[in-house]
Amino acid sequence: MPTNAQILLDSRPSAAATLSNFKLVTQETPALQDGQVLVRHHFLSLDPYMRGRMNDAKSYTAPQALGEVMGGWQTYSVVNAATLGALRKVDTTHVPLSYYLGAVGMPGVTAWYGLVHILEAQAGQTVVVSAATGAVGSAFAALAKKRACRVVGIAGGPAKCDYATTELGFDACIDYKQHTDAASLSSALKEVCPDGVDGYFENVGGMVLDAVMLRMNDFGRIALCGMIAGYDGKPLPMNYPALILRSRLKIQGFIVTEHLDVWPQALQELGELVATGKLRPRESVAQGLAAAPEAFLGLLKGQNFGKQIVKLM
Amino acid sequence: MPTNAQILLDSRPSAAATLSNFKLVTQETPALQDGQVLVRHHFLSLDPYMRGRMNDAKSYTAPQALGEVMGGWQTYSVVNAATLGALRKVDTTHVPLSYYLGAVGMPGVTAWYGLVHILEAQAGQTVVVSAATGAVGSAFAALAKKRACRVVGIAGGPAKCDYATTELGFDACIDYKQHTDAASLSSALKEVCPDGVDGYFENVGGMVLDAVMLRMNDFGRIALCGMIAGYDGKPLPMNYPALILRSRLKIQGFIVTEHLDVWPQALQELGELVATGKLRPRESVAQGLAAAPEAFLGLLKGQNFGKQIVKLM
Repeated sequence: MPTNAQILLDSRPSAAATLSNFKLVTQETPALQDGQVLVRHHFLSLDPYMRGRMNDAKSYTAPQALGEVMGGWQTYSVVNAATLGALRKVDTTHVPLSYYLGAVGMPGVTAWYGLVHILEAQAGQTVVVSAATGAVGSAFAALAKKRACRVVGIAGGPAKCDYATTELGFDACIDYKQHTDAASLSSALKEVCPDGVDGYFENVGGMVLDAVMLRMNDFGRIALCGMIAGYDGKPLPMNYPALILRSRLKIQGFIVTEHLDVWPQALQELGELVATGKLRPRESVAQGLAAAPEAFLGLLKGQNFGKQIVKLM
Repeated sequence: MPTNAQILLDSRPSAAATLSNFKLVTQETPALQDGQVLVRHHFLSLDPYMRGRMNDAKSYTAPQALGEVMGGWQTYSVVNAATLGALRKVDTTHVPLSYYLGAVGMPGVTAWYGLVHILEAQAGQTVVVSAATGAVGSAFAALAKKRACRVVGIAGGPAKCDYATTELGFDACIDYKQHTDAASLSSALKEVCPDGVDGYFENVGGMVLDAVMLRMNDFGRIALCGMIAGYDGKPLPMNYPALILRSRLKIQGFIVTEHLDVWPQALQELGELVATGKLRPRESVAQGLAAAPEAFLGLLKGQNFGKQIVKLM
């Protein structure tokens, strides 16, 4: 029987997550029962929400158990063939296999749900997304352009901002690292959002959220999908909640796995955008399971460029 | 011609509003044109939102102009009889005249809109309101009880809390003045909201908002209608915005005058609650126009007990 390599959660982070929180182990794959299939993994997806699960705190999912494999961070798994949707043939002619973890997977649907159901984006409106060059942000841009919105990104560093506008279709992208406070970032946003902001898709929190809130139009909508800036334990305040009242904003948090009914519709649109070349986001590919923890920590610091995956074979 | 007494905004507050910001003047009422009616005012309504208009800041209404009469703070006004809704005969047999400024007026409709359209309160759910014994809070309690909700108030001081439970129909009321931080207030809330909080109607902001957010159930709704704690200029942060994501909350600000379509339905229900004795909130009545500024400053500090009005004749 083949050997399964796994990465376990070995300890919980006290502040920032570190390599010592993870442990690589190997063990034989189990003997299969009738109806079971041994699946060898091509790719592993790394996503910011996984950081939240490393804490032993109330969240929308149960904490990752100590000493257990980080959800899916292994080279093999055993699947019951009868489980609906567990095994599915995917189109790899028009869509690269790894995209099913990103643009045509959970991150893509996340962008779709936020844009369509929470921001309710309409043609001509201005929508903004933070972590703009990540898996969610890149799908968001393609979906928003298809709806004839003006779409503005916020990302870290000139290389990402350049990539956002030249390759991802953003109309403009602001480098938040050029700003040390919300007022300054907000001024920069004003220049590229002359008509204000109608919808904001938030992945970050903290100063970035404050800055965009200062630019929201009356009746603006904010979809809250991540607060990566606060994952390492320090709670980040929202400094201008009175704006929610003054501008009559709606702010809504959501988890895309609680809205399975929209997945088929969203995946179809995302697949078409990829197949027609309108959504071809870059990927950061780490090589081999052992590289996963370091790649994950880099993701939390924004060191990845595009969707972070790990190639396992 | 009779003499009109008016209170003008004489200067803008630099922090807390003071008596020196107001100025009492008298002048003759103007000669009437054809189709105009000189209206003598019985009552003047004082409402927290008026504080926001005293600042020269972006808000949902234009700032109150300096040297002009504070909206409606005068003993006479001239009305064009042809203006739809400007003159209306009201039922004073079943509803006290002054209630049209409170329970069966703008504050009552505010409670109705928040409860029905934003909190979407359902039977058996727990809803919470701050400034519980004010004009909005008292109407909120009656409307929530009619919908078979558990309704919990937050108010300042044991007298108000006692009044909330014995006369307004609240199932419980927490005295926020007994608590110096959000964690302590949140613990007190937990005791009286054993099933968590499904909907929160916020009039206050600051520590009270933080405390209730810590108790919100998944998919909870927060209607943001006032942030009286922040009206004096110091912006109050929301300390736990990550809860919006973790608990998938919806937070929405609203201004009831932007939803005129619901007023007839809301006023009918509120009028029935008053006529049948299910909503009989207390009023704080100041005597004479000259008393209005002091009564208004007291309202901002929570010194009123029930809806604050000024009797003008």
